[in-house]
Amino acid sequence: MIKIAVLVSGRGTNLQAIIDACENNFIPGKVVCVISNIENVYALERAKKHNIPNFVISHKNKERIEFEKELIKKLEEFKPDLICLAGFMRILTPYFIEYYRNRIMNIHPALLPAFKGLYGEKVHKAVIESGAKFSGCTVHFVTEEVDGGPIILQRIVPVEDEDTPETLAERVLKEEHIAYPMAIRLFAEGRLKIEGKRVKILY
Amino acid sequence: MIKIAVLVSGRGTNLQAIIDACENNFIPGKVVCVISNIENVYALERAKKHNIPNFVISHKNKERIEFEKELIKKLEEFKPDLICLAGFMRILTPYFIEYYRNRIMNIHPALLPAFKGLYGEKVHKAVIESGAKFSGCTVHFVTEEVDGGPIILQRIVPVEDEDTPETLAERVLKEEHIAYPMAIRLFAEGRLKIEGKRVKILY
Repeated sequence: MIKIAVLVSGRGTNLQAIIDACENNFIPGKVVCVISNIENVYALERAKKHNIPNFVISHKNKERIEFEKELIKKLEEFKPDLICLAGFMRILTPYFIEYYRNRIMNIHPALLPAFKGLYGEKVHKAVIESGAKFSGCTVHFVTEEVDGGPIILQRIVPVEDEDTPETLAERVLKEEHIAYPMAIRLFAEGRLKIEGKRVKILY
Repeated sequence: MIKIAVLVSGRGTNLQAIIDACENNFIPGKVVCVISNIENVYALERAKKHNIPNFVISHKNKERIEFEKELIKKLEEFKPDLICLAGFMRILTPYFIEYYRNRIMNIHPALLPAFKGLYGEKVHKAVIESGAKFSGCTVHFVTEEVDGGPIILQRIVPVEDEDTPETLAERVLKEEHIAYPMAIRLFAEGRLKIEGKRVKILY
């Protein structure tokens, strides 16, 4: 059973998918804490409902490194095996990334390496404007390169002619809720092997 | 029945797919001429086998515009409705593109807008090195922006752990041979509507 910490900044639908997958024993693991950098977000409510220790650590009026030291101090109370970013809206510095090297995952709502560095509705707007016929989501390990870490899983959706950023976001989000628990499960089972920028799944 | 001109520089497997799709009446059209900028390539043999007028117009020792004027002069003998680039290894200038505005198609062996500006095995090498779990092909109209014109169709393939650029190229090529005739068919039927960078298919 791995111990999972989840960092959030918003409504936390991916957090919910991870919690549910743990409770259903799909993931051999447990969400041991949820930390938000923003107060009063719905993700914290979700944690409370499942009796998961939850905290707000604000990034405001702090140096990045100071914020991350606080984050690590709190995280280390729970000795997490894996840190999952789930709509966490802060870019992490090499300090944090090195501390949890190869143990930080993120999900991006597009088919990386396309549409790097964008987030939220902006990603979906850019995808639609690019004329691409497919989008999707990407679960990847977090490295110093924003949205550039080794890719674990991707899932694909069509982009429809009538799509707005909202309708595309909704379609992609459904795939996120499948991809993220799947990637965490493979990690928990020790089946992910990083080779450069590629991640092989061991069967 | 539309008249299709195909520009080639190599073995012409996409040319063959287009010829076959016309002969099978999948595309309501006919390949009226094949022009290569390189001598003795196998694409020219394919044209000969199907009794399609075929020509070599070399780009060597010529200004780009001079080369393109020769190209247009030859093309206009056949009054093509559509120019298909099929492994054609020259970047076209705004002069040529304007002449055949919205009537030039190309196929790119990756999921644009990712992996623009690369060609041949280099694309597949870059895809594998990126760690992407999916690749594919993209049929698009040609504009002044290299690999940046409105996308007509995309088809997707998995990238396997064992893939080399060669094995991935082979998998993508199969999809190219489906996507390109399909896109040409939709064009011939008047079903493609360009709106900015998006192409809508009219049903």
